[in-house]
Amino acid sequence: MNVLVVGSTALDSIKTPLREKPRLLGGSASHAAVAASFFAPVQLVGVVGQDFPRRYLELYRKFNLDLGGLQRLPGKTFHWSGEYEINLNNRRTLKTELGVFENFRPDLPESYRQTPFVLLGNIAPNLQHHVLDQLRRPRFVIADTMDLWLNIAKPELLRLLRRIDALVLNDSEARLLTGLDNVIAALPAIHRLGPPYVIVKKGEHGSILSAPKGLFLAPAFPLAKVVDPTGAGDSFAGGLLGYLASQPGPVERNLRRALIHGAAVASFWCEDFGLARATKLARADIDRRVRALERLIRTT
Amino acid sequence: MNVLVVGSTALDSIKTPLREKPRLLGGSASHAAVAASFFAPVQLVGVVGQDFPRRYLELYRKFNLDLGGLQRLPGKTFHWSGEYEINLNNRRTLKTELGVFENFRPDLPESYRQTPFVLLGNIAPNLQHHVLDQLRRPRFVIADTMDLWLNIAKPELLRLLRRIDALVLNDSEARLLTGLDNVIAALPAIHRLGPPYVIVKKGEHGSILSAPKGLFLAPAFPLAKVVDPTGAGDSFAGGLLGYLASQPGPVERNLRRALIHGAAVASFWCEDFGLARATKLARADIDRRVRALERLIRTT
Repeated sequence: MNVLVVGSTALDSIKTPLREKPRLLGGSASHAAVAASFFAPVQLVGVVGQDFPRRYLELYRKFNLDLGGLQRLPGKTFHWSGEYEINLNNRRTLKTELGVFENFRPDLPESYRQTPFVLLGNIAPNLQHHVLDQLRRPRFVIADTMDLWLNIAKPELLRLLRRIDALVLNDSEARLLTGLDNVIAALPAIHRLGPPYVIVKKGEHGSILSAPKGLFLAPAFPLAKVVDPTGAGDSFAGGLLGYLASQPGPVERNLRRALIHGAAVASFWCEDFGLARATKLARADIDRRVRALERLIRTT
Repeated sequence: MNVLVVGSTALDSIKTPLREKPRLLGGSASHAAVAASFFAPVQLVGVVGQDFPRRYLELYRKFNLDLGGLQRLPGKTFHWSGEYEINLNNRRTLKTELGVFENFRPDLPESYRQTPFVLLGNIAPNLQHHVLDQLRRPRFVIADTMDLWLNIAKPELLRLLRRIDALVLNDSEARLLTGLDNVIAALPAIHRLGPPYVIVKKGEHGSILSAPKGLFLAPAFPLAKVVDPTGAGDSFAGGLLGYLASQPGPVERNLRRALIHGAAVASFWCEDFGLARATKLARADIDRRVRALERLIRTT
């Protein structure tokens, strides 16, 4: 089944302790959509400016993304610059130039409105609402968010939580959202805000799924070298939802393996800058790493 | 089969953001030995002073610890005071009074020298060597350590690593030992120093076993409330080794489930101060939590 991904489509200038890469293809929607495309047909919703390189459109097409929902507006593409600290766990935003993103209004083409699996990537909650308003009874909606919206748009975000199936967030966002320092204690508090499914991303420490039938502790794939973690969280969510869309049967039954698939995908994302590793990735590589992850957590 | 545990036997004065508990029974050997005793007969090696409360000897006896190797010397018992920060992840030592521990020389009673499973708890590496020198062909030796010995007794520690089967350490110690920031990259470097098994403790994020047959990622039991994490790492190692000693068949085959048992035991340790939760614990409680942990990582 199809997957709809909305979020930012951006140019990323990334500095790590070892290297610097200017104007890579980035943004939450780019990473999530490419990740999901390994499993299911993907419809992309985003906005780019007139400076958006033709080769990046070709990159989207290489992954068979439906670009009917990608607007091209007069002005510049959203540009983010960031720098990672030595251990790559902490990053610092150097510059954010919103460009055409400032006036982004995600209007969906008619062909997108019946899509069953929806990822509301990290954008302003009012835009996430606007997408939901145009959809006809989606089957499973995942929303991602960030600390910024928790700080400046909390009422809209809280209203969104009552309209989605699953919230994906990292541990510090879980603390910020609930005021609770213990992530396990924060989970029931987040469920009370609406979503029946909550997925907490913990980077190299894996992720936690909290579902009506209980918790699942998903591992991260152990990497001896991380080159650039940008987009790892987005590719995790995209891979997870793409896998769900590709599987028969109820979502609840497929969710644990979906987290494992998301973890496998995200690990590849960390192995090179931007989407560089993704362009050399085959579905068989992902499946191999999924099997490796399953062996890594087998108790016998 | 029997387990020998050597380490510190101390009085701990612990401050958490909510409470303060003076002169609890503590020390690496106390925690590890009590934890191991749920699975196998335990022989304790340690030293206490004349101020060591009789009720703590009774507590040891309640767990059927063999106290033939517990020396009682003129002077004061080792006393440690520490304070935890608000999230209980970081602690700060307020005071360390070595007392009789300063002259500790772990001489083993004859009845201890053939014990097959040995835990060299966190004490000076030269004392760990002294214990090994007295043992007749132990079957499996685990050593724990701490940053202090990495800083002040590295040559003795490096020599110890060539004499043991397994090293247990936390992620920051793994970095300090190898100079490598990435824990996964540090593992092969630690194996090259000697131990065929390395176990990295990551607190609430679980643990990693690195063995000749590959990695195992063990979960931590998700706790919504941690009261006092003191002794969690020691109880993890003790529970792990006690379980190993209780199982037939090769150690390699039982190690993954041993980490799960260690994790289950350690989670109870965090639920109250010192050994308070342990005194109310039954083997059936541990087994129930082991089964819960196994469900939490099942992918289907």
